[in-house]
Amino acid sequence: MKHALNVTREQDFAAWYQAVIAEADLAEESGVRGCMVIRPWGYGIWERIQKLLDDRIKATGHENCYFPLFIPLSYFAKEAEHVDGFAKEMAVVTHHRLVADGKGGLIPDPDSKLEEPLVVRPTSETIIGAAFSRWIQSWRDLPVLTNQWANVVRWEMRTRMFLRTAEFLWQEGHTAHASAEEARAHTLTMLEVYRSVVEDGLGVPVVAGEKPENERFPGAVATYSIEAMMQDGKALQAGTSHFLGTNFARAQDIQFQNSQGQQEHANTTSWGVTTRLIGGVIMVHGDDDGLRVPPRIAPWQVVIVPMLRDNDEDAAILDYCRALAGELNAQTAFGEPVRALVDAKAAKASNKRWGWVKKGAPLIVEVGPRDIAQGNVALLRRDRLYGEGGKLATAFVARDGFVDEAAATLEEIQGALYAEAKARLEAGIGRDVTDFAGIEAYFTGDKAAGWLEVQWSRPTGAALDAVADKLKGLKLTIRNAPLDAAPADGACVFTGEPAVERVLIGRAY
Amino acid sequence: MKHALNVTREQDFAAWYQAVIAEADLAEESGVRGCMVIRPWGYGIWERIQKLLDDRIKATGHENCYFPLFIPLSYFAKEAEHVDGFAKEMAVVTHHRLVADGKGGLIPDPDSKLEEPLVVRPTSETIIGAAFSRWIQSWRDLPVLTNQWANVVRWEMRTRMFLRTAEFLWQEGHTAHASAEEARAHTLTMLEVYRSVVEDGLGVPVVAGEKPENERFPGAVATYSIEAMMQDGKALQAGTSHFLGTNFARAQDIQFQNSQGQQEHANTTSWGVTTRLIGGVIMVHGDDDGLRVPPRIAPWQVVIVPMLRDNDEDAAILDYCRALAGELNAQTAFGEPVRALVDAKAAKASNKRWGWVKKGAPLIVEVGPRDIAQGNVALLRRDRLYGEGGKLATAFVARDGFVDEAAATLEEIQGALYAEAKARLEAGIGRDVTDFAGIEAYFTGDKAAGWLEVQWSRPTGAALDAVADKLKGLKLTIRNAPLDAAPADGACVFTGEPAVERVLIGRAY
Repeated sequence: MKHALNVTREQDFAAWYQAVIAEADLAEESGVRGCMVIRPWGYGIWERIQKLLDDRIKATGHENCYFPLFIPLSYFAKEAEHVDGFAKEMAVVTHHRLVADGKGGLIPDPDSKLEEPLVVRPTSETIIGAAFSRWIQSWRDLPVLTNQWANVVRWEMRTRMFLRTAEFLWQEGHTAHASAEEARAHTLTMLEVYRSVVEDGLGVPVVAGEKPENERFPGAVATYSIEAMMQDGKALQAGTSHFLGTNFARAQDIQFQNSQGQQEHANTTSWGVTTRLIGGVIMVHGDDDGLRVPPRIAPWQVVIVPMLRDNDEDAAILDYCRALAGELNAQTAFGEPVRALVDAKAAKASNKRWGWVKKGAPLIVEVGPRDIAQGNVALLRRDRLYGEGGKLATAFVARDGFVDEAAATLEEIQGALYAEAKARLEAGIGRDVTDFAGIEAYFTGDKAAGWLEVQWSRPTGAALDAVADKLKGLKLTIRNAPLDAAPADGACVFTGEPAVERVLIGRAY
Repeated sequence: MKHALNVTREQDFAAWYQAVIAEADLAEESGVRGCMVIRPWGYGIWERIQKLLDDRIKATGHENCYFPLFIPLSYFAKEAEHVDGFAKEMAVVTHHRLVADGKGGLIPDPDSKLEEPLVVRPTSETIIGAAFSRWIQSWRDLPVLTNQWANVVRWEMRTRMFLRTAEFLWQEGHTAHASAEEARAHTLTMLEVYRSVVEDGLGVPVVAGEKPENERFPGAVATYSIEAMMQDGKALQAGTSHFLGTNFARAQDIQFQNSQGQQEHANTTSWGVTTRLIGGVIMVHGDDDGLRVPPRIAPWQVVIVPMLRDNDEDAAILDYCRALAGELNAQTAFGEPVRALVDAKAAKASNKRWGWVKKGAPLIVEVGPRDIAQGNVALLRRDRLYGEGGKLATAFVARDGFVDEAAATLEEIQGALYAEAKARLEAGIGRDVTDFAGIEAYFTGDKAAGWLEVQWSRPTGAALDAVADKLKGLKLTIRNAPLDAAPADGACVFTGEPAVERVLIGRAY
C-alpha cells in the first residue's frame, strides 16, 4: 500500500520521524547549530499545549512571572560547589559589542569584555532562588507559587528536532513552602497536572512514577516523571517534577520566620515540560501518512478545502465554504469553539488535501460544485484514513448533519487516538521477567520490545551504580517506579534480595 | 493631602515612576545588569496585553512561529555592509562550556570557544529573512505573514525598568508581499492594529504617524509609529511598523517567480511592540497612590478583601466572599468573564486594601460581618479614590446590585481612564508656533510642556540633520507626522519654505 511519506515507521523510525517533521511543516533546521525554526503548524500545537497547561497551572494557584535570560557566572559557581552532577554545557556571553575587524567582517569588541561572563539560562533555579530569598521573610509569605514560560539553552552535542535542541521552549514552575510535607505533596500535585494534561489533552498515555536515585535532578531529594511509550517501544520522559527539600534553600538563603518566631529554610520544588512534548505527539500518534494531531491540540480541527477551478463558480464555492466554517466555529467541542479553516490558497485541491493529511488535521472536508448541489460535503477522518481495499475512506455526508455532529466527531477522534496509544502502552509492558537473563532476552532482537516492569530492592550508592552500568550495556535505563504499580511480592531482579517496589526498564530518547 | 506613595508626580516624576513599579509589585532589579524580574502583577498585565494583540494579529491573517535566540555573527556582517545605522551593542556568546578555574570558581572553558560567535538576537530580521528565502519560491507562496513572541537583548548603557532594559519581551511581526503597494498597506494595517489595541485595550490615546527620515529603522523605506503622551508631557514611542521595500529582500535573497514567470524580490515589513507598553500604562494612568490599571488589562478586575478577625465568623465571611467572586466570574465584561479574586492572605484587611490601591485593581471590595448582615459590600473605585474632603470614597452598596452592575462599572472605568488621558493629550499639543524661537519658548521652563504640532517642508539629508541638531539642543525630537493631521497651509517652521506636512515635536523617553 502506498502512503504519503516516502519512508515508513517500519523501514526506519528515525528517518520517518524527520520526514513527519518536514512534511507536516512542523519545524526545520535554522542554520544555527542545534536551534530549530518552529513553523506555524508546530508552533500552533505548542500554543494549544501551553493554553491547556497554563490554565491548569493557574488553577492550582500559580502566578506567571518572568526572570532574566542571563545568569551571572558566580551563581553557578555556588551551585557547582554543592552539586556533583552539575552540567557544564552552557552558552556563555563574554562580550557586549561588535566592531568591524577591518576586513569587512565583525568581531566581538575586545574592549567590551564583560567583567563577569553571563550564562544563558539552562534552567532558572539559581536566579529564581535569589528572588525567593528577597521575597520570603515570614511564614505569611508562603507558599510562593510561580511559573514562567521561557526559552532555555543547553549546549547539546547531538541534537534532534523537538527531542533535544540547544535552545528549547518550556515552562518551569518554582515553588517554596513552609514544610517538607507540603512541598512534597505539591511536587505530586504538579506531576498529576502533567499526567492529566498529557493524557487528556495530548492523548498520550503515560506512566507517572518516581525516578531512581541515579536519575534525580542534581540537588533534588526526589524526582518524579511521566514516561510515554513511543511507537518504536522507546520511552520519552515527557515531564518531571522535583522535590528539592531544603537543598536549594540552603544554598540560596531562602529563609522565613515561622509562626513561633524561629528562622527556618523553606522547602522548594521545581517542575517543567518542554517542546519535546511535540516530539512525543509525533512518535505516539504519527503514521505512515504523516502526523495525526489530537483535536484538543490541533491548531485547526476542521480544514475545508474548496475545489476551485478558476472559473465563475469559484466565488459561490468559497462563500459556501466560509458559511460552513462560520457554522462550525459556532459549535463547541471540549468547551471551546470549534476551530475551522477554509484553505483558499492557490494550489490544487488534491495537493491541499494531502498537505492536511500529512499535517494531521483531524477532519478534512472537500467541497466542490457537485457537493453543493447535493447539500453534501466530502469528509475525511484523519484517524481512519483508509477503508477497505486501501482506498481513502472519503464519506459523502449531508452538510447539516456534519455540522451538527462535528463536535462529537472531534471528541470521538480524541478518544480513539488515546485508546489506540493506551492499548499499545499496555501491550508494550512485559511483567513476567524475574532475572537479568530475562531482561537481556526481552530486549534482544531488532524489533521494538517496549518496557519491562520488574521488582527490585531499590539499591543505593555503589550497588545502584552497578545496576545502572549493567543496564547501560543493553542501552537500558530505569525509567521510574510507577506510583500505581502493585506492591512488590518477590525477589529483586538484580540482587535476588527481597524486592521493595516495581520499576520500569526501557530504552529511552 | 496624604497619598499612598512617598513621592508624588509633581515632586519628582522619575522617582515616582520607580515608586509605582516597586509599590505595585510590577517588577524589580534582578541583580543581572539591565535585566529585570517581572513580578506576577506586571506579568499578568503583559499577558492581558499579549492576548489582546495576539487575537488581532491572528485575525489579520498572521501565524505565530518561533525562530532561534542566537544569530550567527556573519548574518550581522551582511547587514552591517548595507546599513549605516547598524547598532552594535549586543550580547555575544563566544563559549559553550564552563570549567573549574582551580580556585573554587568557574570560567568559560578555553577549549569550548565557538568558531563563529553567536549574537543574542536584538531583533530577528536577518534570521527570519533567511527562512523567508527558503520558504518563498512562487507568487503562490505570498503573502507570508508571521509573528513571534520572544525575548530580545540590546546592550543598553542606561536602563530603566520597562522603558529600556537589556533584555525585554516583545512581539515581532515579519511579512513578505508580492508588491510594494500591498506591503505598504500592510504596514499601515498593523499600525492601525497597534493604535486600536493601545487605545481600546490599554486606554492609552496615541498619535499614529510616519517617522521622519532620520528616525527610520535602519534599512526601512518608511517607519510609522504610535506616540503616547506621558503625564510629564514626554512622548513614548509605543509601537513601530516598518515598510522595508525590497531592501532586506535584496540583502537576504528573498525572491519569487511572479505569475508571468519572472524573478522578483519580495517587499517586506516588520513591526513590534514591547514590554515598554507597561511603562506607558504606568506613566499615563498612574497617580500619587500608585498604578491604575485599565480593566481590560487588569489581571484581576475586582478584588474582594474579606475582613477576617481570626475568629469563628471568618469561615462564613470567606464563604460569602467566594460566592460573591463566583457570581462576578459569571458576569461578562468586554466579552469575557469578569476576573474576580478573593484575597485571603494572612494580613490586615486595611493593608491588603492599600496594597490593591497601589497595584491599581479597578474595583476593590471589602466584606465584613456587618456588611454581610446588611447585604452590602464596601466598594472602592480606583479611578475615583477620594471624595469630598479628601476622604476615601468608599460606597456601601447592595451586594446584588453591585454584582448586576459590575461589568458596566468596569466598562465605565475603562472609558473614564481613556477619556482622562485623551483630554490631557489634546490639551498637551500646542499648534500655534510658526518659528524656531516659538519652539524654544514653548519648551522652556521646568514644567511639562507637552508637544508641538508644527508645519515643515520635510527637508532631507543634510538639511534634515541640521534641523535634528537644532532640536537636539533643546532635547527635542520629531516624533512623527500624524496621519490625521490637517494639510499644511503655511511656512516651514525651520526653513521658512512652503510647508508640506505637519509634524509633532516633543521630548521623548
